[in-house]
Parts: sequence; C-alpha cells; structure tokens
Amino acid sequence: TRQTEETKGNRELHVKTTLRELIIYLVFLIILCVVTFGMTSTTMYYYTKVMSDLFLDTTHESGGTFRTITNVEDFWKFARGPLVRGLHWETWYNNDALPPSEQGYIYYENKLLGLPRLRQLKVSSNSCVVHENFKDVIRECYDSYSSNLEDKTSVVNLDNYTAFTYKTEEELDGSSHEATIATYSGAGYVQNLGKTQNESLEVINYLFKKLWITRGTRVAFVDFTVYNANINLFCAIRLIVEFPATGGAIPSWDFRTVKLIRYVTIKDYFIMACEFIFVLFIAYYIVEEALEIKKHKLSYFKSLWNILDLTVIIIALLCIAFDIYRTVEVDNKLSELISHPDQYADFEFLSYWQTRFDNAIAIAVFFAWVKIFKYISFNKTMTQLSSTLGRCAKDLLGFAVMFFIIFLAFTQLGYLLFGTQVKDFSNFGNSFFTLFRIILGDFDFHQLEAANRYLGPIFFMLFVFFVFFVLINMFLAIINDTYSEVKGDMANQMNEFEMTDYFKRGYQK
Amino acid sequence: TRQTEETKGNRELHVKTTLRELIIYLVFLIILCVVTFGMTSTTMYYYTKVMSDLFLDTTHESGGTFRTITNVEDFWKFARGPLVRGLHWETWYNNDALPPSEQGYIYYENKLLGLPRLRQLKVSSNSCVVHENFKDVIRECYDSYSSNLEDKTSVVNLDNYTAFTYKTEEELDGSSHEATIATYSGAGYVQNLGKTQNESLEVINYLFKKLWITRGTRVAFVDFTVYNANINLFCAIRLIVEFPATGGAIPSWDFRTVKLIRYVTIKDYFIMACEFIFVLFIAYYIVEEALEIKKHKLSYFKSLWNILDLTVIIIALLCIAFDIYRTVEVDNKLSELISHPDQYADFEFLSYWQTRFDNAIAIAVFFAWVKIFKYISFNKTMTQLSSTLGRCAKDLLGFAVMFFIIFLAFTQLGYLLFGTQVKDFSNFGNSFFTLFRIILGDFDFHQLEAANRYLGPIFFMLFVFFVFFVLINMFLAIINDTYSEVKGDMANQMNEFEMTDYFKRGYQK
Amino acid sequence: TRQTEETKGNRELHVKTTLRELIIYLVFLIILCVVTFGMTSTTMYYYTKVMSDLFLDTTHESGGTFRTITNVEDFWKFARGPLVRGLHWETWYNNDALPPSEQGYIYYENKLLGLPRLRQLKVSSNSCVVHENFKDVIRECYDSYSSNLEDKTSVVNLDNYTAFTYKTEEELDGSSHEATIATYSGAGYVQNLGKTQNESLEVINYLFKKLWITRGTRVAFVDFTVYNANINLFCAIRLIVEFPATGGAIPSWDFRTVKLIRYVTIKDYFIMACEFIFVLFIAYYIVEEALEIKKHKLSYFKSLWNILDLTVIIIALLCIAFDIYRTVEVDNKLSELISHPDQYADFEFLSYWQTRFDNAIAIAVFFAWVKIFKYISFNKTMTQLSSTLGRCAKDLLGFAVMFFIIFLAFTQLGYLLFGTQVKDFSNFGNSFFTLFRIILGDFDFHQLEAANRYLGPIFFMLFVFFVFFVLINMFLAIINDTYSEVKGDMANQMNEFEMTDYFKRGYQK
Amino acid sequence: TRQTEETKGNRELHVKTTLRELIIYLVFLIILCVVTFGMTSTTMYYYTKVMSDLFLDTTHESGGTFRTITNVEDFWKFARGPLVRGLHWETWYNNDALPPSEQGYIYYENKLLGLPRLRQLKVSSNSCVVHENFKDVIRECYDSYSSNLEDKTSVVNLDNYTAFTYKTEEELDGSSHEATIATYSGAGYVQNLGKTQNESLEVINYLFKKLWITRGTRVAFVDFTVYNANINLFCAIRLIVEFPATGGAIPSWDFRTVKLIRYVTIKDYFIMACEFIFVLFIAYYIVEEALEIKKHKLSYFKSLWNILDLTVIIIALLCIAFDIYRTVEVDNKLSELISHPDQYADFEFLSYWQTRFDNAIAIAVFFAWVKIFKYISFNKTMTQLSSTLGRCAKDLLGFAVMFFIIFLAFTQLGYLLFGTQVKDFSNFGNSFFTLFRIILGDFDFHQLEAANRYLGPIFFMLFVFFVFFVLINMFLAIINDTYSEVKGDMANQMNEFEMTDYFKRGYQK
Ligand SMILES: [Ca+2]
Repeated sequence: TRQTEETKGNRELHVKTTLRELIIYLVFLIILCVVTFGMTSTTMYYYTKVMSDLFLDTTHESGGTFRTITNVEDFWKFARGPLVRGLHWETWYNNDALPPSEQGYIYYENKLLGLPRLRQLKVSSNSCVVHENFKDVIRECYDSYSSNLEDKTSVVNLDNYTAFTYKTEEELDGSSHEATIATYSGAGYVQNLGKTQNESLEVINYLFKKLWITRGTRVAFVDFTVYNANINLFCAIRLIVEFPATGGAIPSWDFRTVKLIRYVTIKDYFIMACEFIFVLFIAYYIVEEALEIKKHKLSYFKSLWNILDLTVIIIALLCIAFDIYRTVEVDNKLSELISHPDQYADFEFLSYWQTRFDNAIAIAVFFAWVKIFKYISFNKTMTQLSSTLGRCAKDLLGFAVMFFIIFLAFTQLGYLLFGTQVKDFSNFGNSFFTLFRIILGDFDFHQLEAANRYLGPIFFMLFVFFVFFVLINMFLAIINDTYSEVKGDMANQMNEFEMTDYFKRGYQK
Repeated sequence: TRQTEETKGNRELHVKTTLRELIIYLVFLIILCVVTFGMTSTTMYYYTKVMSDLFLDTTHESGGTFRTITNVEDFWKFARGPLVRGLHWETWYNNDALPPSEQGYIYYENKLLGLPRLRQLKVSSNSCVVHENFKDVIRECYDSYSSNLEDKTSVVNLDNYTAFTYKTEEELDGSSHEATIATYSGAGYVQNLGKTQNESLEVINYLFKKLWITRGTRVAFVDFTVYNANINLFCAIRLIVEFPATGGAIPSWDFRTVKLIRYVTIKDYFIMACEFIFVLFIAYYIVEEALEIKKHKLSYFKSLWNILDLTVIIIALLCIAFDIYRTVEVDNKLSELISHPDQYADFEFLSYWQTRFDNAIAIAVFFAWVKIFKYISFNKTMTQLSSTLGRCAKDLLGFAVMFFIIFLAFTQLGYLLFGTQVKDFSNFGNSFFTLFRIILGDFDFHQLEAANRYLGPIFFMLFVFFVFFVLINMFLAIINDTYSEVKGDMANQMNEFEMTDYFKRGYQK
Repeated sequence: TRQTEETKGNRELHVKTTLRELIIYLVFLIILCVVTFGMTSTTMYYYTKVMSDLFLDTTHESGGTFRTITNVEDFWKFARGPLVRGLHWETWYNNDALPPSEQGYIYYENKLLGLPRLRQLKVSSNSCVVHENFKDVIRECYDSYSSNLEDKTSVVNLDNYTAFTYKTEEELDGSSHEATIATYSGAGYVQNLGKTQNESLEVINYLFKKLWITRGTRVAFVDFTVYNANINLFCAIRLIVEFPATGGAIPSWDFRTVKLIRYVTIKDYFIMACEFIFVLFIAYYIVEEALEIKKHKLSYFKSLWNILDLTVIIIALLCIAFDIYRTVEVDNKLSELISHPDQYADFEFLSYWQTRFDNAIAIAVFFAWVKIFKYISFNKTMTQLSSTLGRCAKDLLGFAVMFFIIFLAFTQLGYLLFGTQVKDFSNFGNSFFTLFRIILGDFDFHQLEAANRYLGPIFFMLFVFFVFFVLINMFLAIINDTYSEVKGDMANQMNEFEMTDYFKRGYQK
Repeated sequence: TRQTEETKGNRELHVKTTLRELIIYLVFLIILCVVTFGMTSTTMYYYTKVMSDLFLDTTHESGGTFRTITNVEDFWKFARGPLVRGLHWETWYNNDALPPSEQGYIYYENKLLGLPRLRQLKVSSNSCVVHENFKDVIRECYDSYSSNLEDKTSVVNLDNYTAFTYKTEEELDGSSHEATIATYSGAGYVQNLGKTQNESLEVINYLFKKLWITRGTRVAFVDFTVYNANINLFCAIRLIVEFPATGGAIPSWDFRTVKLIRYVTIKDYFIMACEFIFVLFIAYYIVEEALEIKKHKLSYFKSLWNILDLTVIIIALLCIAFDIYRTVEVDNKLSELISHPDQYADFEFLSYWQTRFDNAIAIAVFFAWVKIFKYISFNKTMTQLSSTLGRCAKDLLGFAVMFFIIFLAFTQLGYLLFGTQVKDFSNFGNSFFTLFRIILGDFDFHQLEAANRYLGPIFFMLFVFFVFFVLINMFLAIINDTYSEVKGDMANQMNEFEMTDYFKRGYQK
C-alpha cells in the first residue's frame, strides 16, 4: 500500500494509482480464491456424510447406534455389530463373495488403510479421596480423568494381545485429543483389530470376555483411516467413547475428510500453477511491506490495514511451509504403509494439521476480502456508512461495556441456576452462547421451565426485557442517531473528487 | 399505457383517464386470476402427498423406507418391497382378489399408465487417475459422474432382458435430470417392470442376482406415471438413487402432479371461456404497446413499467403457444398408450414443461399484480412511501455493496471452515442461504459448534454482531432518516389534485 | 357512557365522574372474569390430553396409530385394535375381571355414554366425467365429495346390521362437519358398535369382511361421548378418516371437552351467584345504552366505544339465552339416555354449541378488557401514545394498502409455485399464513428448496428483502417519526388537569 | 458506600476514593465468584444426565420408557423392568457376577444409599358430588387430589408389608411436593423395596397382584438417593407418576444433584479459605452499612444501591447459616445410615434446601455484578446511556401499563379459546409465556390452527400485529427519541472531570 500514501497531494493521480492497485489486488484475490476453492469440493461433505451414516447410524442387535451408547454394554454391542460389519466388506450385496483383490474396501470403494486400532485410557484406583463417613463402605475410588492420574500398570498376557500393556505417548507416537469431558493424552492400552471380520470379532470377543474396560477406564478410542481413489480423499475416522466418573458412557466422534495427495488430475496441476503465481504475489507483497516498514518505522504498525496485510502474509507463509512438509510426509507414510499393510496407519497427526491448514487459508481469504474496503472507501456513500461506524465507535464501546457486564451477570446466573439440569447451561461457555441465541429467537423455554418452575420463567423474562428490548434497542438508537448526524454533516461538505468522476471524464474525452 | 402520458397537461382529465384504464386493468387482472386459479386446486397437494406417502414412507422388511436408503442393499430391499407392492394392487383390503378390470390401479383409484421403468447410468472403469503410491494396490477407479465418462458397454444377455444393453438419449427419447449431486443424461441401461406383482418381482430378482448395479453405477431411476380419473390429474413419479463415488447411496425424488387434460368438466369450459377473453386482452395490449414503441422509439425501454408490460406479454404468448402444443401432444400420447398398454409411458417431458408452464404463468400473475402500483402511485401517502424508497435508493445501493462484500466474505469463510462437516455449509449456495437464515433467527448453532469447537462459535458471534446488529440496523437508519426528510419536504409542498378529490367532486354534484 | 359526555365543561367533576364510572366498571369486569374463569379449569386440558393419548397414540398390530393412517387397511387395523380396546375396559390392570357395575368406564373413570357409532358417506359411481381418451379403460369414476353427489342407495342386509342403509340428515338428527378436505353432511350409513369388546369386534369384523368401505367412500366417522363424574366434564369425541378421490386416507379428530352440567359443587353455586350479578349489570348497561341511543340518535353509532359497548351486550344476551337452553336440553338428553342406555348418545350438537358459547364469552371478555382504555385515556403519557397511533393512522393505512398488495402478490406466487408440493403453501390461506410466519422467523427453507431448487430460494430471498427488510422497516420509520412529532407538540401544549392531580389534591386536604 | 458521599465537594479526591472502593469491591467480587464456582462443576450436569438417561430413557418390555407412561399398566411395566434393573447392578457387563462388596452400585460407581421407597397418596371414595342425573349409574366418585380429601384408611395386611397402612406426614418426616397437576402432602402409603433385584421384584409383584394402586390413587412416588465417591456428589432422585381424576397417568421427575459434603480434596480446602475471607468481607460490609443507617436514618432506604447492598448481605448471612447447619446435619444422617443400611435414606429435605441455597447464592452474585454499575456510572458515555433509561422511564411506564393491559387481554383470550386443546395455553401462566415467546419468534402456529380453524389464525394475526408490530415498535420509538434528546443535552453540557482524566494526570506526572 505504498503508492497510495505518497500521492495524497494530487487527487486525480491518487485515484489513478488506487485504481491500478485495486486491479492488481483483484487479480491476487481471484488467484487466492481459485487456490482455496481448488483445495475443497462439495464431494467432501458427502464423503463425511456417507462415512458417518455407516458408523454412527447403523443399528446394532438391540436397535441402538453409536450415537445412543449410554453404557459399557452398548459399546461392546456396537463393536461386535456395526463396527466390524462396517469395517470389513467381504461379500457383494447379493451375498456373492468378493474376490480377494476387492476386499478391504468399505462400501466397495474406500480402501481401509492398515489395521483399525482400539485404545483406552484408565485412571488408577484410589486416585481420589473418599470422605471419612464412607471410608469403610466405599473401598475404591476412581477420579475423573487427568493425565497425571493415569493408570500405567501392565498385565502379563498370554494370548499374544497387546491390549493389557500400557504404552506411553512417545511409544505410540500419539497426540492428545480434546473430547466432550476432558482432554486425553496420546498414551494408553492399544490393540489392533484384524484384517477380516472373523479376526476382528475374535479380538473384540476376547477383550469383552477379559473385561478389558474396567471401572477405571475413562475413554476408549477406535481409530482408522480410509482412502477413496475415485475422488482422491482421505477420511481419518476416530470414534470416542468416554466413561465419566459418574458412570455411563458418552460417545463422540471425529471425521476428518482431507485431501492429503494434492496433485493427481489435470485440474490439480492447474491449481498448482495458480499456487505458484500466488507464491510470486506473496513475494511481491513481502517486499512492498518491508519497504514500507523501513520507511515508516513504528508508525507503520498503527494502521489497521497494515496489520491486516502482515497477518495475511504470515498466514500465507505458514501455509506454504506446511504444504511442502505435507507433500513429503504423506509420501513417506504411504510408502511405508504399502510395504507393511498389517500395521496401524496413523494419519491422525497429518489430518489434524491439514484441517488446521485449511482453516488458516480460509481465514486468510476472509481477511483478503475485507481488505477490498480499503480501496473503495473513498466513494461518498461508503464514507457516510464507514464514518457513521467510526463516529459512534466510542458510544458503542461504552455501550458494549455496559452490555457485557449485564450479559456476563446473566450468563453466570443462568449457569448457576440451571447448570445442573439443562445442557445449554451446563458450563459457562454454553450459558453464554445460549443467552446469545435467545436474542436471535432460538431457544427452548420449556427446558428452563422444567429446570426451575419459578426462577426459569422469571430469568427468561428479565433477560429478554433487559437485553432484547432495552439494550438492543438502545444499540439501534445509537447507530440511528449517529447516522443522522453524519448525513447532516456530509450534506454541508463539498463533494470530493470521486472515482465516478474519473470514469465520467474518461468517458467524455 | 399510452393515454396516461398524453394527458399530463390536464390534471382532471388525467385522473379520469387513469381511472378508466385502472378499471380495464382490474378486469384483466381478475380474468388472469380466474385462469390461473382454474388451472390449480388444493387437491393437487393431496395427490402429491398420497403418492409420496405410499412410495417414500412405506417401510420395507428391515424397517427402512425409500427416504432412509444408504446403500445398494437398501435399494433392492425397497424395490422388492414397497415399490412392487405399491405399484400393483391386486386384492381388496380384506384380501378378496380384485376383478381384472379393477387391477392396475394404485390405491384402487390411480391408473398406472404403461409399465414402470428402471434405468441406470454407469461410469466406465478407470475413468479417473489413481495416484502413483496406490497404483499397485488399487486397480480400478470409477470417477464421479460426468456425461463424457459414461460406460456404454453392452453385455449380451440371454434371458430377454434389456437391462444390460446401453441405449443413447436419442434411442430412449430421454432428457437430462438434475439430482442432488450431479446432472444425469437421458441415456443408460433400461428395463421395464411387469404388469403384475409376480412379473415385476421376477425382473427385480433377476437384476439383483445378476448384480445389475455395479461399482460403476452412479444413479438408478424408477419412472412411472399414474392418472386419476376422479380428479383428472396426472402424477409423473421419478424415484432417484444416486451412488456417489464416495460409496453409499443418496435417494431423491420428483413427484410432478399436473393437469395435462384441461377441458373435461363444465367448470373447465368456463375457464376455457376466460382463457379466450385473456387472449383477446393480450392481443389488445400487444397493439397498444406496439403503438407506443413506434411513438417513443428507444426511450420506451427506459421506463420500468414498459419493460414490465413487455415481460408479461411475452410470458403470456409463450404460455398460449405451449397450451396448444400440450393439448395436441397429450392426445397423441394417450391414443398411442391405449393401443400399446405394454410399453413405458413417458410423461417425463410433458410434465416437466407443464410445471415450467405453471411457473411462468405464476410469475406473470405476480408481475401483473405489481403493475397495480402504477395506477395508484399518485395518491399522496403512497408517494411519500415510494419517494422514500426512491430517494434512499443510492444510499441503499452503496450500503448493499458494503453488505454483500461482507456477506460474501462470511459465506466463503463458512463454506471453507464447515463445508466438509455441516450440510448447511456443504457448498457455496447452501452457505449463502444458511447465513441469510441466521439473520431471520433460523439456524442450528450446535452443528457449527460440533464442526469446529472454537471457530464455530467465534464465526457465529462475529457474523451476528456485524451483519445482524451493525449492518441491519444501519439499513434501518437509512430508511428511517430518509423517511423523515421526505415527510418534511412533502409537508411544504402544495397538495396535488388527487384521485380522492375527483371522487369528492363527483359526490358533490 | 352517558355521564362522561355531559360533564365536559367542568374538568374536576369530569374526573370525579369518570373515576366513579371506572370503579363500577372494574367491579363489572371482575364479576365477568370470575364467571368465565369459573366455567373453565386446567383439568380440561388434561382431560383432552388423556383421551387423545388413548385414541390417537395407542399403536395397533403393525405399529401404526390413528395419526398415521394412510389407507383403508390402516383404518380397520385401528378399529380392531386401539379403538375397541380403548372403548371397552373389562379387566383391572392385573387382568382381574372388573365387576359388572364398574364396566363401561374408559380408564376406569370415564363413563362411555350410550353406544359408539360408525358412520360413512359415499359418492355415487360415475359422479364425474371421464375424459374421452380413457372412456374405454376407466369404467367407474368417483368424484371428490360434495353433498349433492352423495350415494344414497341402500343394500338389503340380512344380518340385522343397519350399516348398509342410507339415512338422511333429518333421520339421524345430524349436522354437517368441516374436516380437512371438505365439509360433510350429517347423513350417511350408520352402525352402532356393541356394549362389550366382543360385540364391538364382531360388528367391525362383519363390516370389514363385507367391504363396508368401498371406492366411493369419502369419509368415515367414529362418534362417542364420555362423562367423567370426578371432574364433572363431558368429552365428545369424533374420529374422522377421509378417503379423498386421490386414494389413501387422511385422519383428523375432534375432542370437545365441555362442562355441560354447570351447577354441582359449592363453588359452582358461587359462580351461579356471580352470574346473577352479571345479569343485573347487563340489564343496567342495556338501560344506559338505550337512553344514550334515544338521546344521540344516529351519532351514537359513530363512536367506536359505543359500538364496543353494544357488541359486549349482544354477546352477553346471546350467552345468557344459550345458558338457559343448554341447562334444559342436557337434562332431557341425560334422562332419556339413562332410560335407554343401548342407543347412540348424540352430544355432537350440544358440545358444538357449548364450544361456540365459550368462544363468544371469551371474546366478550376481551372486548371488556379493551374498554378499560376508555377510562384511562386522559392520562398524559397515554395520550401521547394513543395520539401517535391516531396521527399515523392515515400513513399506516396507505402503507397497509401497499403492504397488502405486495403481500397478496407474494401469497399468490407462493401458492402457484409451491402449492402442489409443500403443505404450507397448499392453499391460499396456508400460503398467506406461511408468509406471515416467515416475517417472525418461523419457516422451513429446506421445503421450499426441495419443491423448486431455483425458484424456491429466489422467492424466499425476494420476499424477505422486500417485506421483512424494506416494508417492516418503513413501518417502523412511520411510527418513529410520528412519535417524535407528537412528543414535540405535547411539550408545547399546556398540561391538562389530570387524574393524578385529582389524587394529589385529595391527599393535600 | 460511606466514603463516596462524604467527598462530593472535592472532585479529584472523590475519584480517588471511588477508585479505592472499586478495587476493594472487585476483590470481594472475585472472592465471591471463586466461592460460587467452587461449589459447582460441569460434572454435575453429566451426573444428572447419566442418572436421567438410566431411569427415564431405558425401555421396558413393551418398548415404552418412564417418559411415555400413560396409564397404570405402564407404571408397573416400568417398575418391574427399568426401575429394578437400574437400581440393582449384580453382574459385570459380560455377565460375570459382581463380588458382594461391589454390589449396590448403580453403573458400578454410584452407591445406592439405603433402600428405595415407593409411596402413594389416595383420595377417599365419594370425595365429590355426583350430579343427580347420574346418581343411580355412577356409584363412586374420586375427586382431584387435595390434602383434605386424602384417604387415610389402613388395611390389615398379613404379609409383613407396610404398603397398605396410611402414615401421616409427621410419621414419615416428609414434606410436600409440587408436581405437574397438584401439590401433594408428605403423608401416604409407604413401602420400601429390597436390597437385591429379586427382593425388589417380589415386593413389586406383590403390590401389583394386590392392586395397590386403586381408582382413588392420585400419585405414586419412587424415592432414592445415590452417592458417587469419585466426584463426591449426591443425587436425590424422585420419580413421580400422577393419576389425575381424568384417568390415565402423567409422569414427572426430580433429579437433584447436590454437593452435600463440602470439604474433601485440597481444592475444597482452598474454597474453604475463600469462604472465610468472604465472611470477613460480609462482616466489614455489615459494619459499614450499619454506620450508614445510623447516620442517614430512613433516607438510607431511599437509595436503590443501599437496598441492593442490604439484600446481598442478608442473602449472604442466610447462606452462611445454612452452610453450618448442612455440615452438621449431613454428618448425622450419614452416620445413622451407615449403622442402619436397611432403611430408607431420606435426603429429600437436605437436597431441597441445598438447591435453594445454591439459587440464593446465584442471585446474590448477580446482584453483586450489577453493583459494579454504581462505580462506573460517572463515565460520560455511560451517563448518556443510563440517563436515557432514566429519562424515558416515565414514558416507558405509561407504555408498560398500556402494553400489559393489552397483553393480559390477549393472554386471557388465548387461555379461554385454546386452553382445552393446546398445552401452551392450558393455564393462564402458560398462555402468558407462550404469547411472550411469540414475540421472539418461537411458537407453533399449527397447534393454534388445529385447536380452532378460524379463531386460531385470527388471534395470531391480531396479536402479532398489535403487539409485535405496533407496540414493540412504539417501545423502540420511545427509546430512540429519548436518546436523541439526551445526546443533544449532553453535547451542551460541560465535560465533567472524569476517571479517565485522573489516569491521564497520573500518567503525565
Ligand atoms: Ca426466530
């Protein structure tokens, strides 16, 4: 954004320069969009959906599904039924056996990479203190999960199973996972399943009979990765069942559909070309911003636009770096996997960072879009709107402080009053967003009423009255009033030389 | 709209002329409404509902329905069960056999025209490129559907079935169909079902045993048309099951309830008379507009009202033309069908264009309604409102540009962040409408949160804050402010001669 | 409202008079509220709920309920199962037989009055015209129901059943019923069920075997009434299954919980006393209004308040008349019923008018509440608000015209575009209310999208933009602007003598 | 708030004092938050959820759950199935028997304290009056529940069961319970279940066979308490089935998750320390307020802030008192329970007051948050907002009167029109909140339409028009207009010495 500033003296030249800069910027933006949209596709959603339908919504013997697991028994029913049948497709739909070369494909299309893996984490017995009154009655006590309470005892096992031996995070090359209740470490007791239905079923039945899941178990993971060659996508699947200290079980899941192999079809190579141009652009902008920083020193960082520029550049650089690392890493993984097909294929780490990478790019594109405003802000109508925003900023800030104190007071009240009963208020964050959603008209009044017959409705009424009626309307009053002022001021001002004038003149020539 | 302009000098005459024109126009509008409402009826909805209940919501042996199909096996279960039983009603409800003359009626009332037809489309093997790493392991690869990747190989078959022979779109006289994932051509492998439950079941079992649906299959269609003589309506039914390249299956459907035979009862002939008057009106307006165009030349096209007039006339002409074509075509089809009852009755094309015809008429009526404003716009209160709209148009436009840049930035962000997980963000269009619906308070926060525990809520908060609070309120401020201005201006103006004055004077005489 | 007007000269006296009138009026209002709330109770809802749970939500052999009936077979399954079991409770919950004196009570508490009755209506064969093309194929044609197309043929039957003999509305002493699709006459083919499960089952099986419901059947009714002595409430139950000309079946129902016997407990006699006072009040107001009409002649009817007074009085008189009629009629009915317990107990007519009576009273109370404004309207703040409403009335009216033309245009467009597919648009009325609900943020976008992939979203966007954003905001602008004006004007006016001043002075003395 | 007032003369000193006071107050607030958040945890919600999943959502033999109970039979099915199996866990998930020391734990983790208890309440026969017409037919009549109609007759029973002997509230040491339909006394017929599945089943089967629940039964309770040592939480569970006078059954429930034992872990002792500091603070504030009251006498109570201070102090004192009582009481209970494990453990009273205690604390914290405004109210922007609120208070009050008269009129109308059919209108309170929710866009139009085809939509339209469009917008107009005024006034005022100035000066030194 160098040139813009230098030419403030000459209005017409300024417009000309801005226009040129705008066009260059639009080219950059288009390239960026092509690159990001090239990375994703609507198929990705369907892939996630097909996989989650298969593993989450297929019913087991008693009619439940993975989503409806509420205790240990349900977990084993799921494992013996939908899990094993979903992982190993050994016949055609009319029950003809599949030829060996076509086995190992989920839905006949999705190659199961390596072996699926079961993993669990336990806490050790008496990891918590029992109150004196109960000391004689209650002998054992298993606390909620915390990595330093982990049970690390290994049992000698005769039958060639690894399921009862504790392995550390390093041994497993794992990483921690944030589930519903807690964040679990990458360590634990690990057991691979088999290559066929029968083998897997045998493993599961053995673990079931030997009470693999004990009172100390706090979480069990099922991990595997599938690859679909038709659409060149990986799906790293993790099914999680948490066994909280309260008893019972809480299922959750993670389906990461990612494009780890980037360049296969012709379209992919076109994207590659765009990515190359993108790198050039980034190089160009780096140089430009470096020059500006050198010139303006610290005052450079006072402009919000400059900060935006820097952010985009930094995100872009990180993404480029990851892109290279990913390409290398995937290649290594796959080569190893193909030579050793009988081990667990760990795409956890790669898929995790790939989704972070996708998110980073998405945010960069968002900022790039916002930057357009920089170029069109000297149009009059736009000025009117943006100076309205600017002028009422102080009032809005004062308002925001008031708003948030009240809002937080209500959040805390909601959490303390209904937290033990209503999911939407079960922690401070949920409570905050629930109140936010009430403003938009999305809420469940009956739950509040059920949780507390009198305080529920009163809380609701007070909140709606103060926040929805009074505060939101005051917000509106602030904007409305400021807009009138700004418009009045602008009417008195002289009309500045605008971009439209520039075009008109060009047209008249 | 000729007369209106010529008489601008004389205010009273102007009102008189406008009034006359308005009355003529209202007559036209009434005729138009009679014609359109004569074409439709509430029964149509119930017909659609009854048919979709039967084919979409009847359960098969394992308790699923057409709506819950998720794989090839489910499709065959549906075909063997609800489909065959729904198509062929051979006994009364108390299991007494129906007399032959009453067979072939769905729900005892709806004649199944000709034979139902199964059709599928495949893509050829190795229609896509497998990445080098997997070349040795994955031998076959079936791309997502695209008409140029279609598998056109035919298999010689001994048993008198046409199901394994590829036919082109021309041979089948078919047309393309836009389903959930892709748009499919009218070609494919075709097989008619039988005239009785047993015949149809035999066909279906043969196809099932011979693995008619293969890994290459991308879509299967079930097509048939029923006619209900009681209410004189056709229902062209198409059940679609897509088999995406991801594996699994996605069902969709199309129930087109249309009135292909127009003139049967006395009421129908009354509508016919109205249609005739309508044609006369159109002729009259064509002449009028032609005269105006001749007079005003190009400047004619500068008025929005004139464009509206032309649009209505053109739609009307197209509809009249189609009306004639349809009457002839249906007659031919039906004659042929009655002489050859054992072939597939293709009402696909006719019903498709009939629904387009209905839509076109609906839009024409909408425009005709809007045109009323032309005649009532010189009333004072109305002027106040419309000039408010007019005056803030420029501001609103500037605002709209700002709004849409931000909105599109959020749309893209939503798509990239949540597209692989959440249906409502699974493509750019969905993402756009989902954000639009958030403004109206219709959204699913929990899905966002599940897709991305941190970015989901942040995205939601930012969007609501900027778009719902700031931008929508600014929108309101613009309108509010302009209205005050306009009202102030109008108060200073002299009161124009109004239509109400005209009535008052007539009353005083 | 006599005194108010006479004393306009003297401000203080005026306030005094008004105050006295207000107090009298409040006494009247309290009496009215006591009477209306005495007639109803929360128990009524639970009674309706318990009865509808029993008959609508109990599952039959194939797992469906009355609500899920979609064809004739389902109807018979319901009749054989939940209906017969729900009507006749012959054992305790532990299967001990009930003593004869305790039989005939649904849920052991609700006396089934008389015998339940089945009734059906048919249309005659060839009640409609078959188009020429189909004349040879389709021999019979049964039109949609219309009372003049009714099939009145009776079949001679040997087995002592009345089910195949047509009876007119007069013979049955019936009345017409408005169901989902059509309004049905009170005539038809009638069959009483038995007094025990076995008797009823026998009747139902006979009708089933003899194909009582034919292709011509358009509706079947199940009628019966229960009385609960514990809470002294009747529930007149009607289950309706319509068989539209499209085939299939559409269930609906009517549970009328009414208090036909008014005076039983002590509380009831207290209500009776209030009713007596209420009658006196009405007499007083009749005299007053009569005097006013005599004095002011026609100009009396120009005041909206007077019209309101008259309306309340007329409703009250009608209700008093019905109250007397009902008391007499119920007594007759019950005496007859108890002497002839083996016939159908027709509470249809009484319960129908009782609900109308309840509604009329409810509306009268509403108007009585609104009338309070007459007495408090001379307070300053209130004047400000009501004169805002008054002053912007003209603008709002002009706006309303504009709004309704656009709204109706959209309604018609919605009906024509989506009417055949979406229930919410299946007729003009539904379409109107659906669009109304969109404004409030209650809608189903996905249905619109499914009905028409392109026009659905476009329609939705246009509607929301024009109606929700532009028109609603303009509405707000009108009110906002007028309020500012009024407040400005009021500030300049002198402060009128207010009711608060009156109180202050009284306080100072 | 002593110091603030004394220093009004000297602006700078005032700010300094306020700042000091604010800091002290913030410390107090933080301590308070630590204490309240220390008492609760997210685990509490999961505990409630796991318990309610187990007892409310587990299916019995016919597929229903506790939630779907609609008659006496369902209740017994629930008792024999999910209740007995849920209470007594006697085997591991793989059916290995549990060692005796690990029995008696629900989900292997939650100790069932004492024996579960069944209790019922009856009304006596002929507790109501049967109308003359029915006197001969209906011999018995059981009124709705009311404590003075209770049936207190005891039956001699041979088999060592207490179930048929009436016990008073004092004998049972019980308290009344407010359920869905009525409030029930703590008396009744009581029966403890056994220690094992077999014992409990035997009790239940005996009661079932002997028709324990009769026509007079109005409510049945199942009470028990579990304790989870892992997370140190009690859950007092009460399942209620009401048998209204209408017949049928209505289930409800109460899961009170409370932390009755406060100090076990190290974290708990940290909270204890904070509680001690909290008590000191309260003592300090008591002294301060006492001094103020002494000084200002009655005028002290005119300030809203002072009332707030007093409220917080009083709540705090009550909570401290209860805290001590609870600690002693729980200790006694538990000691007794451990010595007599074969009796019913009544935690009803304690858990009830513990939840009240939690609610009281929550409200105190809310008020404490609100008090922050006292300290930040002399900032300019804040003044602008609060004086807007203050100035429009009178107008808003007038508006509120108008609003509530209309709103109540609609509430009554809704209740009388739809009360017998629609749950949301089944009593005055529900009707009020339902209308309130319509304003926020959360409603079910179809229910209204089903209840009354014509009055439903009309009612809805009128309500939305008057309340949503007119009144809410007028509300907005009032705030908007006042804000403009206030802002205008403030602009003319001199800038007061603000807290920000104070900081600036400190910075410049
Ligand atoms: Ca909403």
